Formats: sequence, C-alpha cells, structure tokens
Amino acid sequence: ALLWADGRYYIQAEKELAGSAFELMKQGAPGVPDVLGWLMQNLPEGSVLGADGRLLPEAMAGKMEDALAKKGIGLRFDLDLLGPIWEDRPPLPSGKIFRHDLAYTGRQASVKIADVRSKMKEDQADYALYVGLDDIGWLYNFRGSDVPNNAVALAFALITQKEAFLFIDPVKLGSEDRDFFSGQGITVLDYDSIGQHLAALAPGRLAADRNRVSRALTASLPGDVSLVQVKDYPFLMKAVLNETELLCQIRAGIRDSLAVTRYLYFVKEEAAPRGLTEIEAAARLRELRRESVDFIIESFPTISAYGSNAAMMHYQATDQDHSRLAPRGLYLVDCGAQSPDGTTDITRTVSLGPLTPEEIADYTMTLKSHIALASLPFLSGTSGTSLDAVARSVMWRYGLDYKCGTGHGFGYLSGVHEGPQRLTHNPRFGDYGFRENNVITIEPGVYRQGRHGIRLENDYVAQKINKSVTAEGYDIAFHTEEGSLNENQDIFLRFQTMTFVPFDRAAIDPALLSRDELLWLDDYHQAVRKALSPLLEGPELDFVLGETEPFLEQ
Amino acid sequence: ALLWADGRYYIQAEKELAGSAFELMKQGAPGVPDVLGWLMQNLPEGSVLGADGRLLPEAMAGKMEDALAKKGIGLRFDLDLLGPIWEDRPPLPSGKIFRHDLAYTGRQASVKIADVRSKMKEDQADYALYVGLDDIGWLYNFRGSDVPNNAVALAFALITQKEAFLFIDPVKLGSEDRDFFSGQGITVLDYDSIGQHLAALAPGRLAADRNRVSRALTASLPGDVSLVQVKDYPFLMKAVLNETELLCQIRAGIRDSLAVTRYLYFVKEEAAPRGLTEIEAAARLRELRRESVDFIIESFPTISAYGSNAAMMHYQATDQDHSRLAPRGLYLVDCGAQSPDGTTDITRTVSLGPLTPEEIADYTMTLKSHIALASLPFLSGTSGTSLDAVARSVMWRYGLDYKCGTGHGFGYLSGVHEGPQRLTHNPRFGDYGFRENNVITIEPGVYRQGRHGIRLENDYVAQKINKSVTAEGYDIAFHTEEGSLNENQDIFLRFQTMTFVPFDRAAIDPALLSRDELLWLDDYHQAVRKALSPLLEGPELDFVLGETEPFLEQ
Repeated sequence: ALLWADGRYYIQAEKELAGSAFELMKQGAPGVPDVLGWLMQNLPEGSVLGADGRLLPEAMAGKMEDALAKKGIGLRFDLDLLGPIWEDRPPLPSGKIFRHDLAYTGRQASVKIADVRSKMKEDQADYALYVGLDDIGWLYNFRGSDVPNNAVALAFALITQKEAFLFIDPVKLGSEDRDFFSGQGITVLDYDSIGQHLAALAPGRLAADRNRVSRALTASLPGDVSLVQVKDYPFLMKAVLNETELLCQIRAGIRDSLAVTRYLYFVKEEAAPRGLTEIEAAARLRELRRESVDFIIESFPTISAYGSNAAMMHYQATDQDHSRLAPRGLYLVDCGAQSPDGTTDITRTVSLGPLTPEEIADYTMTLKSHIALASLPFLSGTSGTSLDAVARSVMWRYGLDYKCGTGHGFGYLSGVHEGPQRLTHNPRFGDYGFRENNVITIEPGVYRQGRHGIRLENDYVAQKINKSVTAEGYDIAFHTEEGSLNENQDIFLRFQTMTFVPFDRAAIDPALLSRDELLWLDDYHQAVRKALSPLLEGPELDFVLGETEPFLEQ
Repeated sequence: ALLWADGRYYIQAEKELAGSAFELMKQGAPGVPDVLGWLMQNLPEGSVLGADGRLLPEAMAGKMEDALAKKGIGLRFDLDLLGPIWEDRPPLPSGKIFRHDLAYTGRQASVKIADVRSKMKEDQADYALYVGLDDIGWLYNFRGSDVPNNAVALAFALITQKEAFLFIDPVKLGSEDRDFFSGQGITVLDYDSIGQHLAALAPGRLAADRNRVSRALTASLPGDVSLVQVKDYPFLMKAVLNETELLCQIRAGIRDSLAVTRYLYFVKEEAAPRGLTEIEAAARLRELRRESVDFIIESFPTISAYGSNAAMMHYQATDQDHSRLAPRGLYLVDCGAQSPDGTTDITRTVSLGPLTPEEIADYTMTLKSHIALASLPFLSGTSGTSLDAVARSVMWRYGLDYKCGTGHGFGYLSGVHEGPQRLTHNPRFGDYGFRENNVITIEPGVYRQGRHGIRLENDYVAQKINKSVTAEGYDIAFHTEEGSLNENQDIFLRFQTMTFVPFDRAAIDPALLSRDELLWLDDYHQAVRKALSPLLEGPELDFVLGETEPFLEQ
C-alpha cells in the first residue's frame, strides 16, 4: 500500500504513516514515479485497476485509460472502494444554506444565469454543468456551511437555455429558500439525482471543464451528449467584481483591518508582557471580530506564531505544541474573516520588543518587496507570473527567495484561495491576465529556519490607475494620478489596497527604502489613519497615530 | 482571394495588395476570423479544401482536419498549388556547406548524436526526425548559406539507434565534407529522397515535434510507425552552450564590440558632421567588420536609423526612402555579425549633438530598464516571462511600454533569433526556465512616433553568480560575488555580458539612476575598457576612455 504526498507534506506524512502498512511515495522527489508512472511499471498486462470515478476528474481518468490501455490494462471507475469497509463513516454534512442578498451580490441570480446562457450560445453548447461549490454559490446567490471556513454547500448545477437546476440535499433548504430559487427560475432537485438527470439528457453539447467534472458524472451522460471543453464561465465571471461587490469588499476590508489593528495593539501591549501563549493571544482576535454582527467565521484557521515558529509557513499552534510570547523578537499573525460583504486575508508581523539587526533588515526587505508590487502601474492583461517577479526580484537582490507564490485570488464570502488569478513563479499556473476589479493578496516573506518568519500581506483590487474607489464616506484611494494614459493609449492598472493595518514602525529601517518607497508607505499610512481613526479612541487611537507618522518631511 | 497578415504587417500588406485581387484579413483585429474560422464559416458542406502539405505543420493540419470534418468538409494535402502556375520559379538555393571545426564546436557530431540516441531510449523512440535547419547544422557540425544572414543549409535529419542520415542536395558537398560525415557515422542521402526513406521505415516509434514537421513528411510514414510528441532534442541541447562554445562566443562578442564601438566613434565624429545618409554611414560598419578575417556576414540586415526613423522598430533605410544624419538628436544602430566563433546582436543609440530633456530622460530610463535585468540575481529555472517583467516594469513606472519582448535567444553561427529561451510578456511563450549557459539579448526601448527611438541591446550569458568566465586573457567578469549561496542552498544565476560597447555618456542623466545602478554602469564600463583598450589607439582609444569614465567617486 502506497501513499503519494507532495513536498509540503513529506514530514507530516512520514510521521503519520510510521508503523502503518503504507509506504510514502515522495511525489516530485528525484527517481520517484508519479501514480500513473508507478502503475505503468508495476501492473501486469491483462490486469484491471479499480478507482472511484467520483474522485477522479474526467481529464485524469481519460489520461489513465489512454496510458494503461497501451499495456493492456483495464480500468473500472464505477467502484466505491472505501464505503463497504469504512465503519462509522460520518454522513455528508447537512448545514443549512442562506441566501446572499442583492445588497451584497449586486446582481440577481437570474441575470447571472442569463449571462451564462449567452456564453453557452457562443460556444454552441446546449448544457452547462458545474461542480465548483464556490461557483455554484456565487451563480445562484446562496452560501452554505458544509466546508469549514468556506461558506459553501455541497451541490451541482446544470443550466440549459430554458432551465437552471440546483442539485442539493433538500434538508439544507427552508421554504423561503425554495421560493427564492423558484423566483429566480432555478429548479431544486435532489443532490443524488444528478446522475439520473444527466443520463436522461436529450442529444446535444454539454459545456464543462474536464479538469473539474468527475468521471462518474461524464460516465452518466448518454453517448449522444458530447463534451465541449471550456473553463467554467462562473469561475471566470466571479473573478471580476461588480461595483456592489467591490464596495462591500472594501467595507469588509476596513472592518477586519480594525479588528486586526486592535489585536496588534493587544499583542504588543498585553499578550507579550503577560507571556500569553500563541493560542491564548489568538482567542482575543476572535473576540474583537465578534464585536461586529457581520462576522460569520474565520476564512481559515488563524496562524498565531511567535519567533522561530513563524519560519514554518503553515504553522498551527496546538494544545500540545506551542510557544509563549515574550517582549522581544517578532510575532506573526495570518488571519481572515468571512462576512456577508466579503472575505479577508491579512498577515502582519510585529515586534514585541528589541529586534536584532537581521530581523529589522529582513522586515524592511519584505516590506520593500511588498511595496514594489503594490506601487506598480501595470498594463491591463499582465500575467500573474510577470507581477510575481516584480515583488520576488527584490528578495533575489537580497539573496533570498520565498518558497511560495507572491499572492492568490480570494472569493467573496467564499474560499480564501480562489479564482484564476494567481501570483506565481510558474508560468503554467500564472497565465491569467489581470484586469480591472480582480482581487489579489500580496504577501512576500522571509523565513529563517530556527530564527524567525516574516510575512506582510494585504488584500488588493486592480483598478484603472486614474480611478479611485470610496466606501461609506472614507476616501481611501491614495496616490492616484490623473491623465495616466500615454500617447500609445496603454491602459494601466494599479493595485488599490482593501487592507488598512499599519506596518510595524520599530521593525522598519528607512535607510533601506528609496524615497519613492517611503512615499508609498507614508501614503498608505495616511489611508490607514483615514480609515481607522474615526473608529478608535484612547490608547488604540494613539497607537495607530504613532505607527502611521510619516517617514518623510511633509 | 484573401491574405492574412498580423499586426506587424498591416500597413505593408495594405500598400502591397492595393489594386490586386487580394483582400487583406487583419489577423488578430476585432471581428476578423482566423484562417480556420473563415473556412468554417464559408466552405459549403461536402466541399474539398486543397493545401500544400509541405507548408503545413502536422499539428495545424490535424487541427484543420478535425474542425472541418465536423462540417463534412474534406481536405487534400498532397497538392503543389503554386508550382504549376509559377513561371520562372527560381530553383532551391544550392550554396556550398562548410564544416564547423571542433575548435569551435567543442564536441564531435558523433558525440552529440550519441546524446540524442540516449534521449530517444528514454522516450522509447526508434527514430528521431529533424526539420529545423539550425538544429541539423548544430547536430552534425556544419553550416550553409541557403538562407540570407543565417548560415544554414536546406536539409532533413533522421536518426536511429544505429544510423544517422543527412538528406541534402549533393551539389552542396565537397568530397572532404563527405569524408567528414562518414567519419562521424552520418550517411548522406538526396534531399528529395526523404519521403521515400520515411515510407520504408520498419514498424516503430518516431520522435518528432508535430508543431515543426510538415504534414507531407508525416503522411509519408507507414501506418505502423507512430509519432512520439517531443520537443526536438537538439533544439533544447544547443540552447545550453558548452565551454568551448561559450569561450568562442565571448571572443566573437569582443571582436564585434570593437567594430561597433569604432563605428559609433565614426558616426559621431564623421557621419553626423558630414551629413552622410543612414545607408552611407552603415557601409562603414561593414568595412570595420571586414577588417577581421573571421567576419562572415551580418547576422541580419543592419538597422541604421536617425531621429524619428528609429521610432519604427524594424526600420530599413532604402535608396528611395532614408534620412541624412545631422549633428543633433539620436541615432540608432541595430546590427550583428556571423563568425565561426559565434553570432552577435548589438544595438546602441547615440547622441549626434544636443539632445532634448525628453531624449535624455528616455535614454536614461531605457538604460535603467536594461540594468534592472542585467544586474539581477535570479533563481536557476526562472522563466523568461518573470525576467521580462523585471526590465519592463521599470518602463511601466515611467508610464511607457515597449511593444516587443525584452530579449531573445540567438544561435551559434546560426539564426539571430533562436532557441526556446525568450524574454516575453506572454507566459505561454516565455515558459522556458533559464539555466546556466543560456544566451539572451536584453533590449528594452522607448519609441516615440515622429520623434525618436531608443534601444540598448547587449548579448548576455547566464552564469552561476559566483563564477566568472575569461577569454583570451581578458578578465571580463565583473561584479561577481563570493559565497552567494544562501542558507536554503538556492542556486542563483546572473547574466554576464558578452557585449562591450560603451553607453552614450551625453545621453545619461545620472540623477535618474540609483547608486546601485551607477555602480553597475561603472563596473560595465570598466569591463569595456579592459576588453577594448588593448585593441585601440589614438582618438578611438580616447573616445572609449572618455565614455567609460566612472560616474561614482572611486
């Protein structure tokens, strides 16, 4: 029995498999074959391989078939291999769904469905099938609670030119939900009936993404329903926020920035001096977020990491294994919130007392890397790989590299990693071209094993360079320029921040920053003041005012 | 009758098609279908489309077949559509080939062929078929003169585990060439016999790149010879120079830098004051190159462009249409040479007299963009799209963009645009990851229609950051660092110059450059001095010494 795991999980898998019948296959390590390669080498001709077609994307199933057929190996995808032997298997989650109101979505589900239908016409598709839970929730304007932190519900969606179906466990719906869906022209059917329904489709062309729909679903289709390979339309549509979503998302950003900023004050002034544990400290963050009625849940488990723990990018303090804060060195918090008006993902690293010169230099270079991209005007359509390089190259000049992307898209009251947009070194995954109203995190870092970890992460939205967005009376745009079109009529975008949390003044060596970089920093801190000052008082207000003092003479 | 042309040729095609029976289809323009799209819309069901299979890559032919079959349209690829009606058609070129000596290639053809065979084994291929003229010349260590400026000969190559074939017109070979090939285990066959030979292959697997081999060739294969899709091995192998090639290429770079530098002196001191035409001036460049016995031919037609002519990226002065130089403004020369020890491609823009503030700012920002990438340490394996962004983003901050790649690979006594490596904004074309001993040009620019054009282009080779290469006693490495490996054991590369031509002092505003950028510039000019001073005397030496004076206090 073998288990394949990639580099992120080598250590954990080795630990957890120790003493079991499973052997670890280190995926991507030199000389280690991938699953298909191993099967090709080891299965005898004439054998039959069993796999659960519900767990294999059509593209992968097809690739396996093609390869194994050459060796005379058969495949059966209609098997539930674990079900019969899994005792006390928990049932599928059955959390209630909730409707995402028009005040937040800006567009009726029926209008989004009409858009999908016109794209189907362009591709001459009679049907469109969706399996992405985030896409389905966004398209039909509802959310769920079946996946921790993610506000999605288990479902499938099928669209024709006349009908729109939602396949979902009926126990998740109230009667008002049913009225809502029927009012939008959406027919609700049983989650388990998807296969039957697909099998009964009239001849035609079905638009779907082979890399996402399972073999079990495609196998249900009649022979005269052919697959049209497309990227799922809602997947691409929802990556570009509409004006309502954008304004809501900025409001959510300001609200969560307030909670995180108050938390940083607490960490520096209380948690560190009192020697709280990483877990005790983080509990205060949840309290601060709960002061708003709009807080639903964290968008992912908070990373609360002191000192060398922060050098582990995905560190999670546990009851058994954690540290106590102390009034020296660096503390990192990476956290986010789900609320009806959006999703956040914010990281700050702060000094709890005296820092070493290396800590200050590392912090400042991380900030420099962040500013390089956050301040960049770029052509509309620029790929995530190009943008990644602008931040990453600052670290290279410093002799370092971070072993992750520079940033990721995120959903709208949905997954904290979402969307086609990505800032990654790998051009195969970073080919999406950024356009107006794409959101993205920027989060370069320095990770020194056994010493410290630094990450500085804001959420941004791409905007035309001479346009500014305001929300709820806060004029939060900064550093915008008029007349930015050059004589070639190039359309330039820039990232506008949706996160308003001060950077740590004591950790910044201004001598390492250029005048332009300090200008950006002062502008940013000015925006933080504008956003947070009206919402704070007393020592918390003083903290923000102190942290956001300009570095440059005015 | 329709003719498709892409954006580079809209204007030229419109001019040349005026009054003809051809209508121009502006490829890529909104609403204009591509060739296949037009065929799909316009051909009636049951029709048959004729195409010359020798001119269509297998991949494209297959795509056409699949698409047109859906509309019931047949295809015939076995037609020579132009031959029968083309009167006075010139014969194929029949230039002699010449052998590329071991002193330049560093490796025997038989050794390279052995490498190909071991890669064939890895891919379980019985045959490998090559159609790339540059690949074939490199693999078999010969060059030709069938394509202007490119030193290649019309040929095909086929390799098996036991034999290696060269299909070439026998008139191109002398008896010593025949001995050479047979000594390397290469059998020479008639160029026209390739189809017959393929048709007679025993059953097996043939490695080839569907995007390069023509449908005419694949159609010759027996049904029991299957295609294994691979990137051509020599295409990838020759992109990484061996030590001999590298040292030769640096020597060729120094030699051509000398000619270009002397030419710049001539342009400033003679051509501009005397008011020579762009064509008259460029004639002097050829004379200077001819002073070396190693000069074979220009690697492309020299671009000699004064003032606003340089704003056209691919400007060519003609007898009918050219300008005279004058002692003011900017002059651009983009040129290259072929010699037994390598290929060059160099662009300099120089002041001929007083400049406007805009010209100085544009020149300095182009230099800043060039330095950004030329000075960058980057991880081994970094894509051309990431590297492109490092130079291009400097221009974006300046509010401009250049409508071309930042640079391109080039051959070794071969094409001046070659190799998988490219510096391009488009992640689909810039996915090749740079490794040690890849060569590349860096050539950002500013193009202001009707005013001026600026391009600053050097040839570089990727080297480990703490390694330096010397050639013929010139210690040309500069700005190298010891102990550059960080604690993560990252392998960093940097581009080392193979071009040694001063930048134009009068066009540089040092206030626009950072201290680090001036440091790079001073280091570069120091290397230029070292390379050229021993080869110059009198006013030409004084010119170089003056241009390379350091900007920073020593």
